[in-house]
Amino acid sequence: MKKAGAPYLLFLGDVQDELSIKGCTGVTIWRPEKAHAQIRLEGGTQDLGLPNMAPAEAAAAGCQTMLVGVANAGGFVPEAWVPTIIAALEAGLDVMAGMHKRMADIPEIAAAAAANGRTLFDVRQPSQDFKVGKGYKRAGKRVLTVGTDCSLGKMFTSLALEKEMLAQGLKATFRATGQSGIFIVGEGVAVDGVVADFIAGSVEWLCPENEPDHWDVVEGQGSLFHPSFAGVSLGLLHGAQPDALIMCHEPGRPHMRGIPGRALPSLEECIEANERAAHLTNPAARVVGISVNTSAMAEDEALAYLEETGRRLGMPCCDSIRTGVGPVVEELAKI
Amino acid sequence: MKKAGAPYLLFLGDVQDELSIKGCTGVTIWRPEKAHAQIRLEGGTQDLGLPNMAPAEAAAAGCQTMLVGVANAGGFVPEAWVPTIIAALEAGLDVMAGMHKRMADIPEIAAAAAANGRTLFDVRQPSQDFKVGKGYKRAGKRVLTVGTDCSLGKMFTSLALEKEMLAQGLKATFRATGQSGIFIVGEGVAVDGVVADFIAGSVEWLCPENEPDHWDVVEGQGSLFHPSFAGVSLGLLHGAQPDALIMCHEPGRPHMRGIPGRALPSLEECIEANERAAHLTNPAARVVGISVNTSAMAEDEALAYLEETGRRLGMPCCDSIRTGVGPVVEELAKI
Repeated sequence: MKKAGAPYLLFLGDVQDELSIKGCTGVTIWRPEKAHAQIRLEGGTQDLGLPNMAPAEAAAAGCQTMLVGVANAGGFVPEAWVPTIIAALEAGLDVMAGMHKRMADIPEIAAAAAANGRTLFDVRQPSQDFKVGKGYKRAGKRVLTVGTDCSLGKMFTSLALEKEMLAQGLKATFRATGQSGIFIVGEGVAVDGVVADFIAGSVEWLCPENEPDHWDVVEGQGSLFHPSFAGVSLGLLHGAQPDALIMCHEPGRPHMRGIPGRALPSLEECIEANERAAHLTNPAARVVGISVNTSAMAEDEALAYLEETGRRLGMPCCDSIRTGVGPVVEELAKI
Repeated sequence: MKKAGAPYLLFLGDVQDELSIKGCTGVTIWRPEKAHAQIRLEGGTQDLGLPNMAPAEAAAAGCQTMLVGVANAGGFVPEAWVPTIIAALEAGLDVMAGMHKRMADIPEIAAAAAANGRTLFDVRQPSQDFKVGKGYKRAGKRVLTVGTDCSLGKMFTSLALEKEMLAQGLKATFRATGQSGIFIVGEGVAVDGVVADFIAGSVEWLCPENEPDHWDVVEGQGSLFHPSFAGVSLGLLHGAQPDALIMCHEPGRPHMRGIPGRALPSLEECIEANERAAHLTNPAARVVGISVNTSAMAEDEALAYLEETGRRLGMPCCDSIRTGVGPVVEELAKI
């Protein structure tokens, strides 16, 4: 896919809760230089603290893309948003969104994009054709975030790793595999939207061979232990062909996400299963660090948990926000 | 999906080699009562030994569906086939095909289907929306064929199991997960064409809860050890929630299909990995039999291989053609 141009005009729609605009929030946290301006509709109450600009004004100020980083219940584009999307296209902006329903399937939007020579990035639906994965060894190094469950910080950890690796002088590139990650860097593959035959192949495409000392930091998805999504996680693991894995975890979850009654696996079990599965395409793959989301814990409790877990598993154990991922990156630097 | 009505008019196109019509051949082997007539185009040399009928004649004789069970290099519908497909729709037949390119995307064909109220079964592209899998225990028994590699007899073994189970007085239903299997029974899900998020969910839909003594015989796909397709195999394994697994194998393959240089796993390794992965959704799952494709071996050699392998692994080891799957079904009957 073509890369979405920056900076962005962040479209906040008419929503009133913070969670719904997290597609925009991720950009302000991880790529603040891309977050140039915001636009709200009548009734919207969210505010990222950016200048409010109409599409034409944003285009004149240098914006390249309007990001519709807003979630709604049905996953469709509400009618109230359409005029602003069309205005953005007419102002010369590309438009990026991640709804279930594609913008390109809405005739007025498709027509406005065509008439103005603009690109619609419907990032949830991979647009290109992939080949099947082959698993042949390729140059460059790759680290993949994996997890005991879904939605516990794999994207956040991956972005923190990239930032810290660059700070420590390593060559590193974050590779997005979900819509929020794609919004942040402007490109990637929403792996869970790929046709099943091409899961591994799409990831081989996403992180192709590279310089021997370059690291791709590949964002993981799901969990080998999640009964809904393990197939995605396994294909991603094989396609990424990682040299190193970082295990992500959130203590205290009552059950696997979306599956009441199903307990999370232990870290030990999850490490063993991921290493074993990874060996199919990289026999040297191993888990070199743990990233724990301790946001629900008090400081003392969190630090004790990190210390105890790291000692028990014999590897650095961090929280990407509370402590940073420095020690994990030091392990990567040895590979 | 609606089930394609039988009997079928088998469309053999203008092809000249046996391999290209294997989508039709499978029906003549496994559901001969559905193979009512055939139709060839100018230049076609294949012959299934069925009466040749034009669409109108086939419809008058009671045919319900024309099966385009013909493969060609590009995976598209050649122009030369279109008039016959339209004639079939006009004669009141539904049409089933498994090309990469959907018949429904060819405007003349779509229009003829709509005008005549007929159904186009593009079986390679799942048409319904699935939910994500949940992995909750459901009633009924399920047996899944798994394998050391792709294309070594999982569909054939599954159909042989169903036939032998019915012969032994068990309740059994074959559940197709690939296009050839769907052609044979008229329904199913082409799992490798499902959006990755819904692999397990599509299989939960395909083999839902059933009577406690009923067996679904679920056709497997790929292999946990195939770097192109393991994600599909794992999602299918979790969604099928099998009580029993039958391991399929073909001795003597120089490498995994499509991946020169990559050796096949041992049967022991493959059994262990499949049982372990299956335990996520059914802790009682176990491999209860081996199905070996010995077609490349002489009789003596084949029988010795089956005997030695069965003894080594401590379970029945059959060739679904050469010896039948009777002993494997006897194991299933104990569950």
